Amino acid sequence: MSGSSSFGKLFTMSTFGESHGEAVGVIIDGVTPGVEITEQEIQLQMDRRKPGQSSVTTPRKESDTIRILSGVFEGKTTGAPLAVMLNNTDMRPSAYEKNKLLFRPGHADFTYVEKYVHRDHRGSGRASGRETAGRVAAGAVARKLLSLRGVSVTAYTKAVGGIQGETVDESFIEKNPVRAADPVAAVKMIEKIEHLASIGDSCGGIVECVIRGVKPGIGEPTFDKLDAELAKAMLSIGAVKGIEFGAGFDAAEMLGSEHNDQMDKDGFLSNNAGGIIGGISTGQDIVFRIAVKPTSSISKPQKTVDQSGDEHTIETIGRHDPCICPRVIPVVEAMVCMVLEDLFKRQAALHN
Amino acid sequence: MSGSSSFGKLFTMSTFGESHGEAVGVIIDGVTPGVEITEQEIQLQMDRRKPGQSSVTTPRKESDTIRILSGVFEGKTTGAPLAVMLNNTDMRPSAYEKNKLLFRPGHADFTYVEKYVHRDHRGSGRASGRETAGRVAAGAVARKLLSLRGVSVTAYTKAVGGIQGETVDESFIEKNPVRAADPVAAVKMIEKIEHLASIGDSCGGIVECVIRGVKPGIGEPTFDKLDAELAKAMLSIGAVKGIEFGAGFDAAEMLGSEHNDQMDKDGFLSNNAGGIIGGISTGQDIVFRIAVKPTSSISKPQKTVDQSGDEHTIETIGRHDPCICPRVIPVVEAMVCMVLEDLFKRQAALHN
Amino acid sequence: MSGSSSFGKLFTMSTFGESHGEAVGVIIDGVTPGVEITEQEIQLQMDRRKPGQSSVTTPRKESDTIRILSGVFEGKTTGAPLAVMLNNTDMRPSAYEKNKLLFRPGHADFTYVEKYVHRDHRGSGRASGRETAGRVAAGAVARKLLSLRGVSVTAYTKAVGGIQGETVDESFIEKNPVRAADPVAAVKMIEKIEHLASIGDSCGGIVECVIRGVKPGIGEPTFDKLDAELAKAMLSIGAVKGIEFGAGFDAAEMLGSEHNDQMDKDGFLSNNAGGIIGGISTGQDIVFRIAVKPTSSISKPQKTVDQSGDEHTIETIGRHDPCICPRVIPVVEAMVCMVLEDLFKRQAALHN
Amino acid sequence: MSGSSSFGKLFTMSTFGESHGEAVGVIIDGVTPGVEITEQEIQLQMDRRKPGQSSVTTPRKESDTIRILSGVFEGKTTGAPLAVMLNNTDMRPSAYEKNKLLFRPGHADFTYVEKYVHRDHRGSGRASGRETAGRVAAGAVARKLLSLRGVSVTAYTKAVGGIQGETVDESFIEKNPVRAADPVAAVKMIEKIEHLASIGDSCGGIVECVIRGVKPGIGEPTFDKLDAELAKAMLSIGAVKGIEFGAGFDAAEMLGSEHNDQMDKDGFLSNNAGGIIGGISTGQDIVFRIAVKPTSSISKPQKTVDQSGDEHTIETIGRHDPCICPRVIPVVEAMVCMVLEDLFKRQAALHN
Repeated sequence: MSGSSSFGKLFTMSTFGESHGEAVGVIIDGVTPGVEITEQEIQLQMDRRKPGQSSVTTPRKESDTIRILSGVFEGKTTGAPLAVMLNNTDMRPSAYEKNKLLFRPGHADFTYVEKYVHRDHRGSGRASGRETAGRVAAGAVARKLLSLRGVSVTAYTKAVGGIQGETVDESFIEKNPVRAADPVAAVKMIEKIEHLASIGDSCGGIVECVIRGVKPGIGEPTFDKLDAELAKAMLSIGAVKGIEFGAGFDAAEMLGSEHNDQMDKDGFLSNNAGGIIGGISTGQDIVFRIAVKPTSSISKPQKTVDQSGDEHTIETIGRHDPCICPRVIPVVEAMVCMVLEDLFKRQAALHN
Repeated sequence: MSGSSSFGKLFTMSTFGESHGEAVGVIIDGVTPGVEITEQEIQLQMDRRKPGQSSVTTPRKESDTIRILSGVFEGKTTGAPLAVMLNNTDMRPSAYEKNKLLFRPGHADFTYVEKYVHRDHRGSGRASGRETAGRVAAGAVARKLLSLRGVSVTAYTKAVGGIQGETVDESFIEKNPVRAADPVAAVKMIEKIEHLASIGDSCGGIVECVIRGVKPGIGEPTFDKLDAELAKAMLSIGAVKGIEFGAGFDAAEMLGSEHNDQMDKDGFLSNNAGGIIGGISTGQDIVFRIAVKPTSSISKPQKTVDQSGDEHTIETIGRHDPCICPRVIPVVEAMVCMVLEDLFKRQAALHN
Repeated sequence: MSGSSSFGKLFTMSTFGESHGEAVGVIIDGVTPGVEITEQEIQLQMDRRKPGQSSVTTPRKESDTIRILSGVFEGKTTGAPLAVMLNNTDMRPSAYEKNKLLFRPGHADFTYVEKYVHRDHRGSGRASGRETAGRVAAGAVARKLLSLRGVSVTAYTKAVGGIQGETVDESFIEKNPVRAADPVAAVKMIEKIEHLASIGDSCGGIVECVIRGVKPGIGEPTFDKLDAELAKAMLSIGAVKGIEFGAGFDAAEMLGSEHNDQMDKDGFLSNNAGGIIGGISTGQDIVFRIAVKPTSSISKPQKTVDQSGDEHTIETIGRHDPCICPRVIPVVEAMVCMVLEDLFKRQAALHN
Repeated sequence: MSGSSSFGKLFTMSTFGESHGEAVGVIIDGVTPGVEITEQEIQLQMDRRKPGQSSVTTPRKESDTIRILSGVFEGKTTGAPLAVMLNNTDMRPSAYEKNKLLFRPGHADFTYVEKYVHRDHRGSGRASGRETAGRVAAGAVARKLLSLRGVSVTAYTKAVGGIQGETVDESFIEKNPVRAADPVAAVKMIEKIEHLASIGDSCGGIVECVIRGVKPGIGEPTFDKLDAELAKAMLSIGAVKGIEFGAGFDAAEMLGSEHNDQMDKDGFLSNNAGGIIGGISTGQDIVFRIAVKPTSSISKPQKTVDQSGDEHTIETIGRHDPCICPRVIPVVEAMVCMVLEDLFKRQAALHN
């Protein structure tokens, strides 16, 4: 069992750390012993998430250099918990002093005060996207275990501010700062984001994720369905406001005779289900999309109130991403990896 | 901790039962002691879910009469687990004998064989929507506890097969067999469903849910966010393929300056967030929509294979709902109630 | 996750039911699919626990005939939850009316009122030993799964009211009503219990449990150690007041050079550890003993108070076991089986 | 949910770290927000556990200086997880190189190889008592929360190597290196331990724990009983081989008329139950004793085998405590505090 900063049943992570505190990190438990893992493998994923990568991300500078403090001996996992830590270095808590009693629109300031009364106001504190650094570190370990199962997880920016990606070239994803899979759309997306940044605004987008190599039979029935666990994982990411699998919301307008994935001796004839039926993997690609809201932090003036209820106009101060999609992608992949490795282990337990 | 047929952390349910087995039911644990509850209150919700209600639902006839076997003494809860059971009566397992080795398109037949090898083929067995009867019974208990907190949960059919409800009259919901909130659209929805039933097809739809009276501060940070828990709960319902909160997927096309819910001294000026920010309730109405896929069971011929991989044409036999929306609504509400009562108790624990 | 009436992490049970309610039962989840199981196998264990077996047990008459309501199809488990139920038949709730506001010494009456305020006073309600019927049913399923792993679990009465068993003949255990393993001591134990029953008193005892066939490596490190899980399981039985493994409390007086189990090429030279080192099975027999308190229900007059604090003399009314050891043995074995099957599955998950 | 290095349901800890790794630590989650806590309060408990305190403890030198990395802002808890870390400094992993393939008698070397195959052999790795440093840090936070509830937890050495403490002077406990409560017995205990250390042997003992100020009604019914949770917590400590509550194993020789705690208008007339009936606190002092085995690491020659099964004589190398009792006491208290705070929160959730 565990508090709300823990995730997973058998293969688990527990994260800690605030945006402008001393450090952030994660404990990963239930790791298969005897698996080779290096700090470099984890760092690779951290570097995809870290701030300051390009013109479309926040200028905050963090090297996000991780250290593995435990659970690895002579280059291999021992089955003991891996603690992975990274220090915060480019903190500017003073930037938040001026508006510390104001509720920034779109941020969890108001809800945290309501929930906790005593709140860390330095850059969203625990509610900051910086908490996801620990998730990415844990996800890198899960990704390694899944690679041994032949599973790959790939997410990319499908749409930004209304600009849709039409084609998919996965080799292009890491070559452009918005992590789009469509080279043509990517150019327009970057232009749009840069423009919005210049006028102090932000935009949302859609991220699509494709999971390959999951054998049929993964996912638990009833409440812990594969899609249910993935949905929880995605909505646990602060900026995500929706998720759909396969045909998704379009299914609402389809007939049963259109939506059902028929089969012949070579397998399924379509994949409207998105690779999951009855909460269990079909062996096809697992496909889902998430809605990412526009970054809440903008410098345009907005109406708000302070903790006493007095009205103010606020221009959010700080260093922020004008569109969250590019940097949410490694987080999405990390969460997917955590869910999958956990469910693979549950399937093993069922039959052993 | 628990198996995958249990749901909740402090206020929990564990369901059992197959579609054509002897009985289905649920154990509800963590119930506040001293609360008056009657079998009638639970039965009221069961009757909303039970089959055979109208021309747009399955003709299977089940009275779904529940009994409370434990946990209530002299009309009040004792804090001990409530076991609630209902016997299956109108089982026709023989109807499934003919096609028992065939994988019905859209159903979990293939995935269950892959997962379990040994499968109960009688009407989807455990994967049947009949499992949700136990959820509705548990949800009725949660609903009672929430009513004492001033919380109400209302879901209705927003769209069916492309027909959109435009207006919302909540008093109309229980007065029409599709449980639409728009009297004009309801007529067209019913016509569409009846037509599809007559030609052996089915359709999907969208269900919207509005939760009122949740005070600010409910929901846990990081992984057990209110929206994350609701998303898991909704995707744990077999026919649900997507969920969105507040502005949802439209947020992907909005600017930050449009999406942010600004505040003045009277509160929020909009509710694009759907009543949840940072995973925690804002005190506004909580609003979400789910995508419901078309019923998989249709009598139109479809291609499939059997367990040996041989190809067949199948016309699904059985008694089924041509559109799942009307009967999924009490299940949606039940799951929402389970999530909320659990999170209210977690908030109480945090501060006590 | 789950309420306090659930037990186990991967292989779980959730019990329900009160002593004088309508029924008691259990849902067992996480069961390996494809395993042959019959109601008779479960009934066999129920019959060992049921009341009215002999002169040394309560005269309450319950056939305790169980029914499997779900999770078994064509004689084999499907992986879905097994619900097992038994109706109460020989209820006499009226016997408890007279003293319903009095706190019976040794019983949970006082603590339940403090905890719940509203209490089911009929024969201890949920706190009754009758709740353990569900545990025994679940344990019978676990026992079946363990038998396929080559594991056996045997408990017997080691001491009763100061009379120690000196020899161990396991074939004798089920042939005598106190379930002693020493035929000579058994005679004296029976005499003692019958005498105490005749004068309205009761006595405690010690139960020893031997687990054979557990391969090395079972049990989790840190908090979920094999001995930690067994200790929790045993202390969750109402009458148990202590547990010791291997040399147990005698270890407190031993030297390291005496207590350490040395090894040679044929294995361990002693078993002071009781088959568990560092919380993990060594492959030797796992041995522990539990202290069972005297039955609280006696007919000798005792001082107590009622819910208003007024003083009374009480002579407990009802039908009770003068010594709990014989009937607690199937419960002990059931709980051990639940712990073991769960930990075997966790070990499988770790390496898969 | 969580791995086996996590403990608690609502108020939880997750520990990490090996004996001779880089650092050890803990994440504490579910902490009441707004509570003042300082590093000094935690350090105070760490200092009681740290090695090198006296002639009867290991000469390993660790300052065990902790840092709080998160979850505290402006001196108060925020409700976010507290990460507490301490670096290892006096590691001597090379001391373990020589015997790295040998199974040290009494240690978890053999069982860890069986469980994990790949093992960290440096001073027991994860199985080392050093892991408990994280527990003590978490327990210090729990202790602070409990102090606000008026609860105190006090453990002391009751017996060492057969020398029994007869009197209890709690003010003496922290004034003597064995943490005995009996000044006369303490002198003999110290002599005995120093003698055993001089001849390369070790001894076991008994620790008694008294918990005061727990109101009636704390503890969950059925499986999560207060005594069940405490038993699990105690047996999760490596050196503990048994536990008994109140009269404990003596209850096995008592009559019901002797063991039952009768009541009059002023409360209970005795406390044979040890303050827990039906798994729930009675409001009396909660009293239990644990059996602590002799330290496994001794320098006397012992027979063992290596990973290939070849026989050896081993004289354990390293720096060790000749008796674990004095240093296990802060660990015992920490675990008790964790259990209690968690169950207090569960009681709050039940009624709110």
